[in-house]
Amino acid sequence: MSQTNLRIDRIQKGTVIDHIDAGYALTILNLTGLDEAPNLITIGVNVSSNKYNKKDIIKIENVFLDKVQMQMISILSPNATISLIENFMVIEKKRVNLPEKIIKLIECKNNTCITNSKKEPIFTEFSVLEEKPLKIQCVYCDRIYKLDEIIFTKKEIKEKKIKQTIQL
Amino acid sequence: MSQTNLRIDRIQKGTVIDHIDAGYALTILNLTGLDEAPNLITIGVNVSSNKYNKKDIIKIENVFLDKVQMQMISILSPNATISLIENFMVIEKKRVNLPEKIIKLIECKNNTCITNSKKEPIFTEFSVLEEKPLKIQCVYCDRIYKLDEIIFTKKEIKEKKIKQTIQL
Repeated sequence: MSQTNLRIDRIQKGTVIDHIDAGYALTILNLTGLDEAPNLITIGVNVSSNKYNKKDIIKIENVFLDKVQMQMISILSPNATISLIENFMVIEKKRVNLPEKIIKLIECKNNTCITNSKKEPIFTEFSVLEEKPLKIQCVYCDRIYKLDEIIFTKKEIKEKKIKQTIQL
Repeated sequence: MSQTNLRIDRIQKGTVIDHIDAGYALTILNLTGLDEAPNLITIGVNVSSNKYNKKDIIKIENVFLDKVQMQMISILSPNATISLIENFMVIEKKRVNLPEKIIKLIECKNNTCITNSKKEPIFTEFSVLEEKPLKIQCVYCDRIYKLDEIIFTKKEIKEKKIKQTIQL
């Protein structure tokens, strides 16, 4: 029995997220809520980027990313590129931009931090100390976080559809 | 600027999970722990299956599924097929098999069920009443669950690597 190629053709219209850090595509899809889109999505995980490196890549039809989603991607994969596709052509290609400050998107895990005070609800704010590997610092309590310590605030996460609430 | 095809070639050795219910590929990857494999994985979500239907498909190199993983897939996508690939050829192709009873894999959410009793820890056991849409029944307390109410037991889930512990 011969195996057929899984040929992923060029998309007519949509977004290509390329040069994602290897292994992060599924986390990106989950955090951005793109995993619940009814659109055609094609994903490569741990594909060869060049002789020495691996990367992930996502193509999603008829979807364009908003600012919050692009910021999430920049946090998880600072080297990612976003290509906008129209009529099968790349009309715009840009690098994701890790801002100097990350506001609202991430929680501060320090219970004593003023951002966790119930009396005075304020948005979190983090300075980006280093991009790769990521290191950020809460501007209020000075606590420093590495990438694997980051918790994204729940309010930013879209409500999951029922079929994805299979808990772990 | 022209767009390059994302050509997903045939894999030399590994597993193809085809005819996954549309939108379930990422949940399957997450539950089975395959999302943490360092292997090449290619995924199509909401690809056209025929004129009327959509499906998901997963190809993973150098990985073969164990019984628990296949059972998880049969629960989420009873019509899925598993193809084993060697030397670029399909050496075996089979349908997933939803067993008549599901043991251990799923929790019973009924707090009064004996399977949740701290004194007498026993494995959960569910009868499969209907395959599609899935309907199962706890053999102890008779509670019935549909697919979107299912909780997989944590013990069956592989420990997440640090980079995937970004909490939501």
